[in-house]
Amino acid sequence: MSSPATIALLGASGYTGAELLRLLVPRTDVRCVALSAERNAGNDVGTVWPHLAALDLPKLCKVGDIDFSGVDFAFCALPHGTTQEIVARLPTSVRVVDLSADFRLTDPAVYQQWYGKPHAAVALQADAVYGLTEFARDEVKDARLVANPGCYPTAAQLALVPLLQARAIEAEGLIIDAKSGISGAGRDGKTANLYAEVTEGFQAYSIAQHRHLPEIEQQIGAAAGRAVTLTFTPHLVPMSRGIFETIYVRARADATELRRLWQTRYANEPFAHVLDAGKIPNVKQVRGTNMCQLAAFDDRVSGRVILLAAIDNLVKGAAGQAVQNMNVMMGIPETTGLIAAAAYP
Amino acid sequence: MSSPATIALLGASGYTGAELLRLLVPRTDVRCVALSAERNAGNDVGTVWPHLAALDLPKLCKVGDIDFSGVDFAFCALPHGTTQEIVARLPTSVRVVDLSADFRLTDPAVYQQWYGKPHAAVALQADAVYGLTEFARDEVKDARLVANPGCYPTAAQLALVPLLQARAIEAEGLIIDAKSGISGAGRDGKTANLYAEVTEGFQAYSIAQHRHLPEIEQQIGAAAGRAVTLTFTPHLVPMSRGIFETIYVRARADATELRRLWQTRYANEPFAHVLDAGKIPNVKQVRGTNMCQLAAFDDRVSGRVILLAAIDNLVKGAAGQAVQNMNVMMGIPETTGLIAAAAYP
Amino acid sequence: MSSPATIALLGASGYTGAELLRLLVPRTDVRCVALSAERNAGNDVGTVWPHLAALDLPKLCKVGDIDFSGVDFAFCALPHGTTQEIVARLPTSVRVVDLSADFRLTDPAVYQQWYGKPHAAVALQADAVYGLTEFARDEVKDARLVANPGCYPTAAQLALVPLLQARAIEAEGLIIDAKSGISGAGRDGKTANLYAEVTEGFQAYSIAQHRHLPEIEQQIGAAAGRAVTLTFTPHLVPMSRGIFETIYVRARADATELRRLWQTRYANEPFAHVLDAGKIPNVKQVRGTNMCQLAAFDDRVSGRVILLAAIDNLVKGAAGQAVQNMNVMMGIPETTGLIAAAAYP
Amino acid sequence: MSSPATIALLGASGYTGAELLRLLVPRTDVRCVALSAERNAGNDVGTVWPHLAALDLPKLCKVGDIDFSGVDFAFCALPHGTTQEIVARLPTSVRVVDLSADFRLTDPAVYQQWYGKPHAAVALQADAVYGLTEFARDEVKDARLVANPGCYPTAAQLALVPLLQARAIEAEGLIIDAKSGISGAGRDGKTANLYAEVTEGFQAYSIAQHRHLPEIEQQIGAAAGRAVTLTFTPHLVPMSRGIFETIYVRARADATELRRLWQTRYANEPFAHVLDAGKIPNVKQVRGTNMCQLAAFDDRVSGRVILLAAIDNLVKGAAGQAVQNMNVMMGIPETTGLIAAAAYP
Repeated sequence: MSSPATIALLGASGYTGAELLRLLVPRTDVRCVALSAERNAGNDVGTVWPHLAALDLPKLCKVGDIDFSGVDFAFCALPHGTTQEIVARLPTSVRVVDLSADFRLTDPAVYQQWYGKPHAAVALQADAVYGLTEFARDEVKDARLVANPGCYPTAAQLALVPLLQARAIEAEGLIIDAKSGISGAGRDGKTANLYAEVTEGFQAYSIAQHRHLPEIEQQIGAAAGRAVTLTFTPHLVPMSRGIFETIYVRARADATELRRLWQTRYANEPFAHVLDAGKIPNVKQVRGTNMCQLAAFDDRVSGRVILLAAIDNLVKGAAGQAVQNMNVMMGIPETTGLIAAAAYP
Repeated sequence: MSSPATIALLGASGYTGAELLRLLVPRTDVRCVALSAERNAGNDVGTVWPHLAALDLPKLCKVGDIDFSGVDFAFCALPHGTTQEIVARLPTSVRVVDLSADFRLTDPAVYQQWYGKPHAAVALQADAVYGLTEFARDEVKDARLVANPGCYPTAAQLALVPLLQARAIEAEGLIIDAKSGISGAGRDGKTANLYAEVTEGFQAYSIAQHRHLPEIEQQIGAAAGRAVTLTFTPHLVPMSRGIFETIYVRARADATELRRLWQTRYANEPFAHVLDAGKIPNVKQVRGTNMCQLAAFDDRVSGRVILLAAIDNLVKGAAGQAVQNMNVMMGIPETTGLIAAAAYP
Repeated sequence: MSSPATIALLGASGYTGAELLRLLVPRTDVRCVALSAERNAGNDVGTVWPHLAALDLPKLCKVGDIDFSGVDFAFCALPHGTTQEIVARLPTSVRVVDLSADFRLTDPAVYQQWYGKPHAAVALQADAVYGLTEFARDEVKDARLVANPGCYPTAAQLALVPLLQARAIEAEGLIIDAKSGISGAGRDGKTANLYAEVTEGFQAYSIAQHRHLPEIEQQIGAAAGRAVTLTFTPHLVPMSRGIFETIYVRARADATELRRLWQTRYANEPFAHVLDAGKIPNVKQVRGTNMCQLAAFDDRVSGRVILLAAIDNLVKGAAGQAVQNMNVMMGIPETTGLIAAAAYP
Repeated sequence: MSSPATIALLGASGYTGAELLRLLVPRTDVRCVALSAERNAGNDVGTVWPHLAALDLPKLCKVGDIDFSGVDFAFCALPHGTTQEIVARLPTSVRVVDLSADFRLTDPAVYQQWYGKPHAAVALQADAVYGLTEFARDEVKDARLVANPGCYPTAAQLALVPLLQARAIEAEGLIIDAKSGISGAGRDGKTANLYAEVTEGFQAYSIAQHRHLPEIEQQIGAAAGRAVTLTFTPHLVPMSRGIFETIYVRARADATELRRLWQTRYANEPFAHVLDAGKIPNVKQVRGTNMCQLAAFDDRVSGRVILLAAIDNLVKGAAGQAVQNMNVMMGIPETTGLIAAAAYP
């Protein structure tokens, strides 16, 4: 057996970083050799993540102190906006999966519009491959830099792309009513995200202005073959993980036919599960896994179908898909380290 | 001071029954003289509701054992389908607020279609007043039998009716994406509703076939002045109480104008709170109260507005509105016993 | 009817402040004329507490800007340590209930030991009445300054004091295993208190060093008639409100006899509910109320009894008891504004 | 590679059964060939466990229809009381790990006292090995029938056994204040376990009479070398999984020394993690894993130490330890299939 691939994890102190460690540490074919966490540099992982304290992992360090000459892969799980310069400075020998939003938008003007400042690594952005694995496997395989999709866009695309490409639904008038667990808001201490504030509550947020909107429109537009403007309303659910999307579409076929299109497209996909007629996805059933559950229901309103998609925002919506992409880039079986059933209940 | 009005509560062992007791017991102008609970007849209230054990309340009894000659008002909080015969047998001297769905649908054919059997009290149904208090105060005042609206329909109507009546939104293409806490599913022990099954989960249910659909369509149709078919998708949120509706509408005006229409209509309504621009409702803020929070946001898609409504399903969506209707029927201030801030957090 | 008593609430932006508003606002015999919140001075209450936005309340202000000449009562719901100077500067015409820990410890040396600095208002501390209402009604009645008990100490004393005074249990070897909802940790944004961190978790904290320990020991010692050292372990429960204490005692009588002692002592107490044999308290049953539930169970170990107590930390453990004390100070019925059943479920 | 060991899982429709499937299915060295679920015999696993619907598993069947001639191992995850006859009828060629309580108590009289009827397989009970793996590895290795420990007893023993055997703590006066998630109550639909009833609540249950008490006393007595009676109070936490025990002991050494004894005993144990001084276990950190976290704190009361233990009731407290025992019985590395970090948050 060859020596394990070496991995640097930039941004080990966020939820996505912890999830990457959970997925990578049990593996024998890869090894985490550097874990960055600027404010906790010098400390053991256990100071940030007590649940990982018993593992044998390198100490936390600053990005600037990593010797990338011995690193094969880097996962960037840094906040949006900080990643561009850091990735631009990495040696080109290091292949990168970036979990931030920094390289997802192909049009620098759109980036500037939604993030309020010019993109700092436009050349790199042009090279980046948008890595929704099921739809970009071939490009990912040879990419140096993969922009890992956002959580909401992942679920939306898995539901919509095959149907749009088959011209079975209209690109006009798409409405995505999305619900997410709170971990998507990160680990910073904010009053709004306190347990006491969130439990037994439910609300919408960032209505018609969430930063995943341009990402969804870009990708849905590509699948539809023309510019798309759509309705996207995210909501906060009192749960830790999970994304559920209820998508209202005008269809040229009924739910049975749409399900058949999905089944054909996803026949050999290990991480897309098209549910039988009448079965309803539940984020609890995919919790901790890389799976996406999909379902379609005929509406009472003629010509309308309701699509449902459920993923774990930290797995298929972040760390799991990042590992899936790494597996593709390494040329090993795509499911390596990712086959798991949910810990239910 | 006159002697208190006497109340019989039929169905004291369900969540709605407990909530009625919570609202009625502190009052001095009404007195609960009979509490029915068939399977627990003969027991103290505390055997069913330990949180009410310290109160001075009559023992539980069977409906058939109640002497209605001394009863002024009856709240029927019985399961759907069982109420028709019971209400039909009550002396006409007893005024009734029925919290079941039995008298909400005015068309017996629609009732039969959705409930699978003919209505057993068609004559009474014709007399019943549909009691969404804000819109039916005058009829409620003189009614003998008030059909208390369902929880989902209450939130939907408070958002939509004024806008439809003002012709500010279209009746066509309405999409109601609704989210509810689990108490709406009742207190029967069902595996699907266990804590372990619900926590950290999220799913849709009864897609395009929930029994509140015909009720919503009936009332929205009345407001629109023509038959309406709409899209309604309920979801289950891991929380005990609360309903949140995200309603997608085609509008002839922008969010600012819709908000203004609500404000005009609800200027003197104590239980409808139109939020300032940019503020978002949250079920936690209305928990335990009779309040409905309303908000409107412009969508990015031209001509579309997103409406938001939040209520407590057990209060404005059930027991609170029932008490509000009773107050109107009694000719006392409508807010009696209903002014409360949420116990936050 | 006389004009309402005027109230200043110092510290309106914490959970205790919100709870005081919930309890006070519906009343017609008192009126909040000043609400302080230093960082939010000048803003409407709704900016801090959206669930109170619909109420008619004065704007938030700085403590220094309050004209106390028109104020009858002040509730101090400020952080520990900041209260001493502020209370010391209030006109003596203003009667005060202080909800912080600043005046609870009668011995300045003990205060300094546990809070790490000398007490800044020793003279006032000597005058303060420790206001566990059930045990100090007479002193509270005439007090100018009432130190409102801590949440954990309230539950512990309601369980233990009558039994110790009756010499029915030993003061030696008391073990209090306490569990609390997260609202006791306040509203500051801290990572440890985020929803994602707390949900589906359970842990102890401040083991053998919680600052409520000296308060409990002081009061239990007074009841026992000698100095007491005891074991106190607080735990954090994934819930918003509530305290549950499991207290292990060596008893000179069995559970039946201890229950009888409680029943005698609390026969006329509206806020202490001694449960029937075999019934178990639950914080959910007292949620939002000023009630304390008490139960006693014989242990299998001879000579040992297990006592259970449940309260809502924000009501009987803070704002509710503060209002109860105010009622006593005003000479009005002690239960005014405090009779309520829990909003269950 | 040899052909995989074949496994029959009796009782696939309970939470423990689902957890066994989660742990076993990804493995290539074992294969589930029979899954029993009496009421669902003939159905796919997905009808009972939608989260497992995408897996390739045999259909559910009745125990009586299993051909045990091709079965190497059986996991019995059946309800208490039903297991004795079933295990007694299994061919002796099948090695068994029983997760029920049926073979844990070695004294038939004690069994009868706590379970209300005579044991139906006394001879088998005499042969059964009590399988707390860390303490019984050698006997488990050669056992035909392993009685898998209860969840509460597992945490208690991991904390107490090494300290009792070292005579570092007294066997007298042990108090175990235990807290558990709700999944321990099983998947039957009971009102008391509904989400709406459990959320935002906390209570004790089965005070001084839980059926895990005699199991704990039997094992603690064995470690202490004499009969032990102890105090055990279980509580219900609003969370799905996890057990946390706060154990009050009289010690002949301080917390530092007790920690050192644990560290020595558990130096090579992969599933016992002795936390550094001052660190506190949290069930969230072991969620979904086979790990037990342990900590010791000096009490303020001289001579007393507070021990803390956290496990996942469904893993180290049930299915995980069962797999650990199977691994030992098979002679393969004990950690096979059990190395995992918690999916945090």
